[in-house]
Amino acid sequence: MKIALFNDFIPGIVQDDRIFELDSIVPWDSSNPQDSLVRLMDRFEELRPQINSSLSSAKSHLLSEVNLRPPVPNPSKIVAAPVNYYLHQDEMNLQFNNAEYTVDKLGFFLKAPSSIIGPGDTVKLPFPERRTDHEAELAFVVGKKAKDVPAAKAHHYIFGYFALMDITVRGKEDRPWRKSFDTFTPIGPWIVTADEIGNPNELSFRLWVNQELRHNANTKDLIYDCYKFFEAASSVMTLEPGDIITTGTPDGVGPIDRGDTVRIQIDRIGEFSVTVDYKGLEGT
Amino acid sequence: MKIALFNDFIPGIVQDDRIFELDSIVPWDSSNPQDSLVRLMDRFEELRPQINSSLSSAKSHLLSEVNLRPPVPNPSKIVAAPVNYYLHQDEMNLQFNNAEYTVDKLGFFLKAPSSIIGPGDTVKLPFPERRTDHEAELAFVVGKKAKDVPAAKAHHYIFGYFALMDITVRGKEDRPWRKSFDTFTPIGPWIVTADEIGNPNELSFRLWVNQELRHNANTKDLIYDCYKFFEAASSVMTLEPGDIITTGTPDGVGPIDRGDTVRIQIDRIGEFSVTVDYKGLEGT
Repeated sequence: MKIALFNDFIPGIVQDDRIFELDSIVPWDSSNPQDSLVRLMDRFEELRPQINSSLSSAKSHLLSEVNLRPPVPNPSKIVAAPVNYYLHQDEMNLQFNNAEYTVDKLGFFLKAPSSIIGPGDTVKLPFPERRTDHEAELAFVVGKKAKDVPAAKAHHYIFGYFALMDITVRGKEDRPWRKSFDTFTPIGPWIVTADEIGNPNELSFRLWVNQELRHNANTKDLIYDCYKFFEAASSVMTLEPGDIITTGTPDGVGPIDRGDTVRIQIDRIGEFSVTVDYKGLEGT
Repeated sequence: MKIALFNDFIPGIVQDDRIFELDSIVPWDSSNPQDSLVRLMDRFEELRPQINSSLSSAKSHLLSEVNLRPPVPNPSKIVAAPVNYYLHQDEMNLQFNNAEYTVDKLGFFLKAPSSIIGPGDTVKLPFPERRTDHEAELAFVVGKKAKDVPAAKAHHYIFGYFALMDITVRGKEDRPWRKSFDTFTPIGPWIVTADEIGNPNELSFRLWVNQELRHNANTKDLIYDCYKFFEAASSVMTLEPGDIITTGTPDGVGPIDRGDTVRIQIDRIGEFSVTVDYKGLEGT
């Protein structure tokens, strides 16, 4: 099932080119969509038959006529894998002479939840003079509180998957600084529940800047796959329902600039775009 | 005023050796103390006369007979200053040959909110064989949503101050990994409202491991003082009410081990202790 948030952060189920309102079927407080989502995930299997049977009579809209919002609007953490594809390690070493380690040595980093934006929103570059890159990632949302979960059991704790762009200022600052500027975490277009994804470690995905294909990759090349990275993160921290985990970018990172449109597409999930502007000069 | 959370996360005002229950005076939902705290901070100046006049008739306890809880239990972020004292830079370079930059080059890092514990709790070391250090810091809680706030106006946005230990595994992993293990952010003993602190950039503080004094410092030696670091963080991210900002450790960091008691004390705030054990072997 594809669960989206739209307009005033009300929930909907996406089928083909339509979105069906879910808030008359499940308890929902639009003033706190994150907590509402956590409650929905907690009861989802119980509610699923009711959602299926009620949907045909629910109010619906053309997808093209709604504003999609970030499907996980305010997690308690965004846990991110640093250097989780070998070809990305190679390009970092080549371009920045970093001698970067990979995820098994680096652990993880955190992004500020305040950096989240949704489909159609605008990435605002704080430093026009500094190189700021797109990164394209498969991300997922934690469905149940988790601590010390082995990789073999991680799938029990992952509610669903979505696409994430990890916008990044290049430089020597710590990753959380370079990646936590407001607007630096576009996510979307919706959450696809795990049962519809099948194996998340074999998904093709792509990212374009304008018409130029920049990333063209598959999660089978992850160093730590979704489940292994879940194990690694949950061995450190209690993962809370609603937390976002993102698996890292493949090779192909490159700069974005004012006026660009950046589009990400993941098989079995879907696609969304954001635009790019300079902070403080939007629309001028 | 000293605002504490105690027992089942109910709020209290600390005066001398007693704590006065606040939850009959202000709206409070103990199942969500973080949101309750944010609402209290939002209306604090309005409520202050009522709190003052009602306190003498409020139920009270001896401080020694309650369990103090972390005074900011679940912020949307913990923003932390890396290498914000020159003498700490020196000791890092000497001990680990790191050639560490300071805060002006590094920006900030983030700690997971799930790492927070309160006074009297136990720090659980995940790797007995790896060096894991105490760090002693002045921290504060954001009272109002803030973005792009200059240092000269930061004091309008800081609600109050408290003590924080930034427990840290040494090594090459990214800081968020090394500092986000569950139990790695002890905070307390309570929030002291900004009006009672006066100048936060001239506070003496100390930390002991058992009877041994390890840190003995003053916030006048901060590279980025509280207000300047607030400016730096808010230039990147929207700071939310209830977010924690911590200013970094002075020199004196050193290892902790099973059986240790770690005590932090800050002038005009107070003190608290935590104990140390190995994860998974607590109490054996």
